[in-house]
Amino acid sequence: MKIGFIQMEPKLLDLNANLSKAETLIKDAAKQNAKLIVLPELFDVGYNFETKEEVEEIAQQIPDGETTQFLMEQAKEHDMFIVAGTAEKDEKGKLYNSAVIVGPIGGGYIGKYRKIHLFYREKLFFEPGNLGFHVFNIGIAKVGIMICFDWIFPEAMRTLALKGADIVAHPANLVLPYAPKAMPIRSLENRVFSITANRIGEERGLRFIGMSQINSPKAEILLRASENKEEVGLVEINVEKARNKKLNEFNDLFKDRRPEHYVI
Amino acid sequence: MKIGFIQMEPKLLDLNANLSKAETLIKDAAKQNAKLIVLPELFDVGYNFETKEEVEEIAQQIPDGETTQFLMEQAKEHDMFIVAGTAEKDEKGKLYNSAVIVGPIGGGYIGKYRKIHLFYREKLFFEPGNLGFHVFNIGIAKVGIMICFDWIFPEAMRTLALKGADIVAHPANLVLPYAPKAMPIRSLENRVFSITANRIGEERGLRFIGMSQINSPKAEILLRASENKEEVGLVEINVEKARNKKLNEFNDLFKDRRPEHYVI
Repeated sequence: MKIGFIQMEPKLLDLNANLSKAETLIKDAAKQNAKLIVLPELFDVGYNFETKEEVEEIAQQIPDGETTQFLMEQAKEHDMFIVAGTAEKDEKGKLYNSAVIVGPIGGGYIGKYRKIHLFYREKLFFEPGNLGFHVFNIGIAKVGIMICFDWIFPEAMRTLALKGADIVAHPANLVLPYAPKAMPIRSLENRVFSITANRIGEERGLRFIGMSQINSPKAEILLRASENKEEVGLVEINVEKARNKKLNEFNDLFKDRRPEHYVI
Repeated sequence: MKIGFIQMEPKLLDLNANLSKAETLIKDAAKQNAKLIVLPELFDVGYNFETKEEVEEIAQQIPDGETTQFLMEQAKEHDMFIVAGTAEKDEKGKLYNSAVIVGPIGGGYIGKYRKIHLFYREKLFFEPGNLGFHVFNIGIAKVGIMICFDWIFPEAMRTLALKGADIVAHPANLVLPYAPKAMPIRSLENRVFSITANRIGEERGLRFIGMSQINSPKAEILLRASENKEEVGLVEINVEKARNKKLNEFNDLFKDRRPEHYVI
């Protein structure tokens, strides 16, 4: 099964340009037989907003808004699953830094995640996520979703792994240098695959680091993208490798946990 | 304040040789004004046992046994705090892979930790730790202790950090290559200093990786030892840097946690 990321440079507040760019890159991934691809956090709207009004004007409902409908069409057309970050406006007008998962099954819309740990000025624009960490069983794999800054809290990926995730999809807009080093460790400590789909470019003085990455359950960096190019990155994986938590004949990563001694 | 590690090669089942070797290295650390030093896991007895009887014969009570008494004397003589791994036999004969903390205060004995996550064949020899993760306030810092394989469970250091640790002392007998890469991330996600004191050498075919390491709350590797030499490694730190969990004006690593969404 081929899984991977689309690393791109969203254009701030330009929905049409971003969907169009994504369409081109998704087509490229499809030609290479991708079955699951991850797009960056807020791929549809950009990141470095100045006012809440900017976000309110461009954010979409899920799944009825333009972004999710576009992704559903893409997933159906190319017979693939897609996880992508998007600015969500709910029916009451509340804003969330969300991600959707869509695929070529049922109506196409599978579910969404609302970012639980907001970073920096995101707190000015978005409500903190209120749907918990959720794992979506898409048949070919169980996919957990977390967004960008969630990575620094080990509880995020741990929660997804304990809920059964084989693959953690991690849309991101990284500006700090740590995540590419940390994500292989996150994968290792939970024995799951992880896909960080980051963006590139600069917005109003804020530079993003690229280096989208796919990590194995054994902390291998299976693929790392450039710091400054739009790219499709895919690897062939065997999802079964994420399901056996045994390290050796005596140790099992999950059975060896001793929650009675953990503070939460 | 100078803190650090003693990287050494314990001799299997030779208590006298190991205390004597440790004495020399501790003196070296004292000459360099160390205030807190960490010795490897099971520094007094070696690691790769074949039978439980081997451990039963050499394990000591805490604090009355020879190892802890030796460490208490060293701490008093050199006016320093010492954390060291040791094979413990309790009053009922039960065996633990433990660590003690001693220092130049009160009677010298401060406390102990019993390894909670046992690795591989350790399960044949030792009982799993039953004292929880504990932080010891030694005046100049709050010190948490975990041992070797505990590192792979993010809950271990997280628990110590939430209990107030500034510095995590991490006696180890590492044989796998992951911990030197993971420990800076552990330090970062908890904003604490960490000291991994590893051993070197080979025992009955099992090779240890050295690379003892001191990590800052910002994921910097302040010092890394060689793979094969006995060494004293010390760095000057400002412990206050572990007490401010603010990342920026919007984010605080601990206040931003959202335990209502975490599975334990």
